[in-house]
Amino acid sequence: MRKSEQPSIDYAEYLQLDQLLNSQHCESSKYGGPAHDEMLFIITHQSYELWFKQILHELHSIHSLFSEQPLLEKNLALISSRLRRIIKIQWVINQQFSILETMTPLDFLEFRDYLIPASGFQSLQFREIERRLGLRNSSGNCPYGRFSETDQQFLKNIETEASLFDYLDKWLARMPFLEFENFSFWQSYQQAVRQMLDSDLQIIRHNPSLTPNEIQQQTQALETTRNKFDCLFDKNLYQHYQKNGEIRLSYQATLSALFIQLYQDEPILQLPFKVINQLMDIDAQLSQWRTKHALMVERMVGSKIGTGGSSGHSYLKSTIESKRIYSDLFNLSTFLIPRSKLPQLPEPLIKQLGFCL
Amino acid sequence: MRKSEQPSIDYAEYLQLDQLLNSQHCESSKYGGPAHDEMLFIITHQSYELWFKQILHELHSIHSLFSEQPLLEKNLALISSRLRRIIKIQWVINQQFSILETMTPLDFLEFRDYLIPASGFQSLQFREIERRLGLRNSSGNCPYGRFSETDQQFLKNIETEASLFDYLDKWLARMPFLEFENFSFWQSYQQAVRQMLDSDLQIIRHNPSLTPNEIQQQTQALETTRNKFDCLFDKNLYQHYQKNGEIRLSYQATLSALFIQLYQDEPILQLPFKVINQLMDIDAQLSQWRTKHALMVERMVGSKIGTGGSSGHSYLKSTIESKRIYSDLFNLSTFLIPRSKLPQLPEPLIKQLGFCL
Amino acid sequence: MRKSEQPSIDYAEYLQLDQLLNSQHCESSKYGGPAHDEMLFIITHQSYELWFKQILHELHSIHSLFSEQPLLEKNLALISSRLRRIIKIQWVINQQFSILETMTPLDFLEFRDYLIPASGFQSLQFREIERRLGLRNSSGNCPYGRFSETDQQFLKNIETEASLFDYLDKWLARMPFLEFENFSFWQSYQQAVRQMLDSDLQIIRHNPSLTPNEIQQQTQALETTRNKFDCLFDKNLYQHYQKNGEIRLSYQATLSALFIQLYQDEPILQLPFKVINQLMDIDAQLSQWRTKHALMVERMVGSKIGTGGSSGHSYLKSTIESKRIYSDLFNLSTFLIPRSKLPQLPEPLIKQLGFCL
Amino acid sequence: MRKSEQPSIDYAEYLQLDQLLNSQHCESSKYGGPAHDEMLFIITHQSYELWFKQILHELHSIHSLFSEQPLLEKNLALISSRLRRIIKIQWVINQQFSILETMTPLDFLEFRDYLIPASGFQSLQFREIERRLGLRNSSGNCPYGRFSETDQQFLKNIETEASLFDYLDKWLARMPFLEFENFSFWQSYQQAVRQMLDSDLQIIRHNPSLTPNEIQQQTQALETTRNKFDCLFDKNLYQHYQKNGEIRLSYQATLSALFIQLYQDEPILQLPFKVINQLMDIDAQLSQWRTKHALMVERMVGSKIGTGGSSGHSYLKSTIESKRIYSDLFNLSTFLIPRSKLPQLPEPLIKQLGFCL
Repeated sequence: MRKSEQPSIDYAEYLQLDQLLNSQHCESSKYGGPAHDEMLFIITHQSYELWFKQILHELHSIHSLFSEQPLLEKNLALISSRLRRIIKIQWVINQQFSILETMTPLDFLEFRDYLIPASGFQSLQFREIERRLGLRNSSGNCPYGRFSETDQQFLKNIETEASLFDYLDKWLARMPFLEFENFSFWQSYQQAVRQMLDSDLQIIRHNPSLTPNEIQQQTQALETTRNKFDCLFDKNLYQHYQKNGEIRLSYQATLSALFIQLYQDEPILQLPFKVINQLMDIDAQLSQWRTKHALMVERMVGSKIGTGGSSGHSYLKSTIESKRIYSDLFNLSTFLIPRSKLPQLPEPLIKQLGFCL
Repeated sequence: MRKSEQPSIDYAEYLQLDQLLNSQHCESSKYGGPAHDEMLFIITHQSYELWFKQILHELHSIHSLFSEQPLLEKNLALISSRLRRIIKIQWVINQQFSILETMTPLDFLEFRDYLIPASGFQSLQFREIERRLGLRNSSGNCPYGRFSETDQQFLKNIETEASLFDYLDKWLARMPFLEFENFSFWQSYQQAVRQMLDSDLQIIRHNPSLTPNEIQQQTQALETTRNKFDCLFDKNLYQHYQKNGEIRLSYQATLSALFIQLYQDEPILQLPFKVINQLMDIDAQLSQWRTKHALMVERMVGSKIGTGGSSGHSYLKSTIESKRIYSDLFNLSTFLIPRSKLPQLPEPLIKQLGFCL
Repeated sequence: MRKSEQPSIDYAEYLQLDQLLNSQHCESSKYGGPAHDEMLFIITHQSYELWFKQILHELHSIHSLFSEQPLLEKNLALISSRLRRIIKIQWVINQQFSILETMTPLDFLEFRDYLIPASGFQSLQFREIERRLGLRNSSGNCPYGRFSETDQQFLKNIETEASLFDYLDKWLARMPFLEFENFSFWQSYQQAVRQMLDSDLQIIRHNPSLTPNEIQQQTQALETTRNKFDCLFDKNLYQHYQKNGEIRLSYQATLSALFIQLYQDEPILQLPFKVINQLMDIDAQLSQWRTKHALMVERMVGSKIGTGGSSGHSYLKSTIESKRIYSDLFNLSTFLIPRSKLPQLPEPLIKQLGFCL
Repeated sequence: MRKSEQPSIDYAEYLQLDQLLNSQHCESSKYGGPAHDEMLFIITHQSYELWFKQILHELHSIHSLFSEQPLLEKNLALISSRLRRIIKIQWVINQQFSILETMTPLDFLEFRDYLIPASGFQSLQFREIERRLGLRNSSGNCPYGRFSETDQQFLKNIETEASLFDYLDKWLARMPFLEFENFSFWQSYQQAVRQMLDSDLQIIRHNPSLTPNEIQQQTQALETTRNKFDCLFDKNLYQHYQKNGEIRLSYQATLSALFIQLYQDEPILQLPFKVINQLMDIDAQLSQWRTKHALMVERMVGSKIGTGGSSGHSYLKSTIESKRIYSDLFNLSTFLIPRSKLPQLPEPLIKQLGFCL
């Protein structure tokens, strides 16, 4: 099956091993004696950078697939398989910390000072990944301080482009199915929720085994739940929270995402459901990356000033939660109702959600 | 080699499989139809509980080995190998979340209401592990609310007993070596640190390539570092922070732990160094358990009220950082100095730190 | 949302912790002193058995879903999500070996003799899983020797029932699409393969950069490839290998599986493609389980007679390869051809393979 | 603490990212269209090569530490910590297969033919690692066929140098302790084994619950065990097996390794015991690497001729077992006897095996 007309290629040349394996230059070798563990430090970070390049390769392709309209089923499958690859890469690089942790803080100290101010982790590609996934630069704080002018400009430009979050939002917002002939998902769902809550209230009130105190408590808890739903049902309220920055996904996209969650078993919704879950996985893995990184920095340098002059692990820890990108998707679970209470979809719609067999 | 006099035993009987494999009773089977995924929910939690029992088995043994005086080298090795086992178990049960995550929130909803108020995670053994490791109940909040009177009493009793943290503190505090004939580790170390800081200051001041502004910045950073060391050198200041609750390890134990970190290469200190690292590993794995658990709860129930009536994942997240047990050990890295600047130990002491070969 | 009419349930009761956590009885405690590590041995195996129960729970459900005709898309998705869960469980229990390996062979020796003849691994559930997945008892050897009469009968009965392999075969065999109006996948594919091989031959023969010797070699290699395809194209030959036991999947099923592989991008084939891959994953994980188990036994007992009287790890190793269940699926890759050479499907068929949008 | 006199360095420059991230050149881009997954293929292999470089970095250092005489305790600790790092790296790169497996065989086919004859895995560094660890080139087969003359010569030269296996053997062989004043470990151990076997025989013969048939079986099993010990006790027999190639470790080294295994609890033997276990871990991880690689190749190309012209996965599978390096260490477990039957070491020797406290 070999294409004999092409010149045969060489493994080492193909992988550019000459270049690759000669890119490790220990600073410690220049000053005094070489520190054995600096090689590990370099190679670990180079391996991260290689994988970051691969993640960006997948993200570029995902962006481009998402930008085509209409989004073909075939392409959504491709998107999903590439998201899956990103998740696998993230998992492996999260495990990679265990290698770097075989270096003790004292060993790190042997070459740490030579690296100043090259932070332990000042990766342009990592910042690009965050932005391409949809992380927004929170106002005020300027995390690009350590990058060159050119790099800062590069990152700022990316922020003006559509992110994966934006593509997701648009794709969800234009999803059909929510209105079908006489059926309105949104109306039926609201009705179902209200019936459920009313019925729950009746059960609480007429439960002979509850004390008056317990009845009051449970009634209050039910009221809290009702309020949460209200903020979904009331578009104005929703948009108020959106302006506040507490919610990011557009109203229409949220409705679609909820529809997908609730009818996840329908054939045509399985892939969209999977994609939504994969985005949460990516977010979760990114959180873990940050947690592990912060923990490692804490272990290595204590509360000392970080190698890049950052205030070290306490800064890192404080940023982990605020850097969640897809928290709106996690929040959707708040609004699920049991399958038994779900509005029945009209038969012709179900057919459309299935294959044409 | 078989001990033929004993009755031969049966695999299934030995492992009590009859009992073990008949301990899964789905609540959903009692009400309406059985929910397929409830079995997974039960078995995942049962597997956790089995492993918790094993962790407690190791912890009991470690406590008992630590309580003997003097602590024999042989026993310290045993302690270390059992800590290692705990870490391996923690790693595996942290991975176990990936199994439970194959259940979607909608699938969970099929049986979630049947479990009220049995929280998704109300494990007495887990609380016991935390206390045996040394977690202290922060004042005010009462995390035992959902446990029975007996269980609450059981947990309170454990808090009156010595924890692994206490054993560690005592063992470190009574470690010899810090004073040896005319050599005082503490004095020599302070001197070395001061020399290092003074020398750094000279370098900054006389660096022609720095702007006055940069000189000022770096001088300030150095001052911050000096202040951190001061809080270690000044016993009163140290004890002030201890009373505040910012530091927990006793002064003497901190000194020993630092000595171990700095002279980690000496044969007799290698095992103590390893044990200190293992305790940090255990702490780190516990943090990860909590992070993963919080994330899973968020995914499952959104911001709805948790199955046990707890306020769900936001409560969980807020507690993760405050539940660190061995943060004092992590902080030690703040006070490391490069090997080249370390006070030279006197020859006879080095001999004592080695084997008698 | 709480169903207040039902009695509230208790975490420990729900999980039957009393029963679960009192099922560990160390034999070593009966004879002489208790061996600390026997607890680990018991709990590790109990954890395995819990997860085996879960795997069987999923397998039963998968069998039942597969047995319905026609197999609804919705149910295939359910099958796939349950296969995925099995794979996750397998991955975790494969990692679990790292826990047991914290026990040294000398520690094992402290209680090993008490377990005779309860083999280190004589799990009825494991054998059931193998059979339900489709492992056939190779003629002659009787691996059930150590089981009780009842258990042997139980396993033999399972072998008379349809296995997952059988369900897969039937499902694939009845898959439509291979013939569509004037289009015959099988004919078009054979033609495409032959064209490709002929073209490769021309390229080799007329390549000026090849020596006569190289031309001969490459021509031979091409002939080998052609022969492999022939054994697929010639139904009689195929069935000859099937009788030999070298192939197990029916001819019709193989054709469908190949079709799925080749047109894996078509929407309706994505899920079938995934299911096929998952079955290979399960097989691969099972192989790894056996490899890891054999290695652990070797480490624990050397070449001594195994605790269950088996001849130990060399027996284990010899069986790993022969226990592959889905090797026919792995072999399909032999017959893939590049997308560019694939016969073009007729437009109406493509439509049928997509959604009705 | 910053060394201000040195020029500040840049993260991207330090890691040579320019060079590193421009080393991915897809062949598929040259011919027809670029295949999206070729990037993954390149980066995965480049990541492997980076980690191989790190493993070699550790191995060089370990060789050098081992070659110093006497081997200082401090250096043995260093050796052990670097072996541990190798194991962690191996674990991570074994997990890395899961990333590459997100590429389907059909996707691979999009660029596979362009790589001929650059085998999927023709890594010079990997061969070097194998040789440095101690893998011997089995006679006859010439696995270097695909390497250039220079590379073949390079590998052959390595084979003439001492491998880690050789260092281990020498280090073990010169270990003291086996003879101490009037105490001879070897004599005492043989005596203990014989007593144990004799006692077992008495128990079998006089066990009233055994049938004559069972007595015969168990007596035979005991005889087999005795024969195995004989091959250890009889130096001539041992050396006969050594010449055969069934055993590789020298007689004296085997005795020391056994002594270490049996008295693993003594302080001074803990580190040697750990090193022995780590070598087995490395061997085991290497086996897993090969198993996973063979499985992946099988999945990708079926039984087709491999990309490098090798006969593919069946060749790979057949070599896995024969490539074990430290099987002699695994076999030691065969000769362990319970702690209760171990010859008591003389008090002064025990003292020597501990610290001088």
